[in-house]
Amino acid sequence: MRAYLAGPDVFLPDAAAHAARRAAICRRHGIEPLSPLNEDVEALARMDEREAWRTIFAKDVAMMEAADLCVANLTPFRGASADAGTLVELGWFLGRGRPIFGYSNVSAPFAERSAALLARAPDPVPGLAVEGFGLPDNLMIPGAVEQGGGLPIFVPERDEPFDGLAVFERCVAAAARKLGVARPA
Amino acid sequence: MRAYLAGPDVFLPDAAAHAARRAAICRRHGIEPLSPLNEDVEALARMDEREAWRTIFAKDVAMMEAADLCVANLTPFRGASADAGTLVELGWFLGRGRPIFGYSNVSAPFAERSAALLARAPDPVPGLAVEGFGLPDNLMIPGAVEQGGGLPIFVPERDEPFDGLAVFERCVAAAARKLGVARPA
Repeated sequence: MRAYLAGPDVFLPDAAAHAARRAAICRRHGIEPLSPLNEDVEALARMDEREAWRTIFAKDVAMMEAADLCVANLTPFRGASADAGTLVELGWFLGRGRPIFGYSNVSAPFAERSAALLARAPDPVPGLAVEGFGLPDNLMIPGAVEQGGGLPIFVPERDEPFDGLAVFERCVAAAARKLGVARPA
Repeated sequence: MRAYLAGPDVFLPDAAAHAARRAAICRRHGIEPLSPLNEDVEALARMDEREAWRTIFAKDVAMMEAADLCVANLTPFRGASADAGTLVELGWFLGRGRPIFGYSNVSAPFAERSAALLARAPDPVPGLAVEGFGLPDNLMIPGAVEQGGGLPIFVPERDEPFDGLAVFERCVAAAARKLGVARPA
């Protein structure tokens, strides 16, 4: 079983070392990780901007095609919700009907985070109403995760570090159990 | 041709009237609009939170299933990027290989908006690097739109109102031309 590891983890300053830690956790649970890193930074740097981003996009889509499931880091990123690229990928797996599992390192529900954000940066139009429903993010996100993998989004009781991997490991372990993946001996 | 009209428009205080204006524009260009409104507010209010959000999710997915294409309002919403639910839907259409067209009412590129947001609310970890590539949003978003519909995201030269429909109409007209939809007589 190959899992596409979606998330803002690719933006971390130590993205490659972090991906190696995530990969080791996956393998411990019998899951083969696919990490959308941009290892080929030198080749990308030789391209013009348009060629570079289209190369990254094509590589990420090909990696999703090769994946049996998605494990998505839905920790809020630069706004009230999860990382934008991660959400497109989540939707891709939903559209394909492939299993989706998700987690966040932040404990506060979406409504609470939205209110905090609005206090700093009001909406451009008054009266915009986004219901929280007690969920960790916009309802399309837990909807996609629950329909995709049959489990809710994993959230910690108290916030974990942005790059913490404890909730990730709980999520990967649950995904492996749900999909009947045998743990390596 | 039926178009799923994704976007934060559903959160507007006058969402139903706004959807009617969008629908009229679509029909003018020979496209049948599918608007994910929650008209049945009274029934939703009788449900518990979990039943209510799952009902909305199921209805939106069924509406996407019924759509031939997606027209997505990618105007930034509560953060540096487009609305979270809209992005999941964008990914769904990409996963299904159905045409996607997108527009925004904001002219500033993603990198500029991200920098403005970071000045107000720094990342939880220093050194997170998200490349802008001169694009209107995270590369997965123009990637999905260009792969899906063959056109870039439509953006205005100067910001339009959050609920403005001029760029929407340009986008719908281009989608109709691209897909060879005949204008009604």
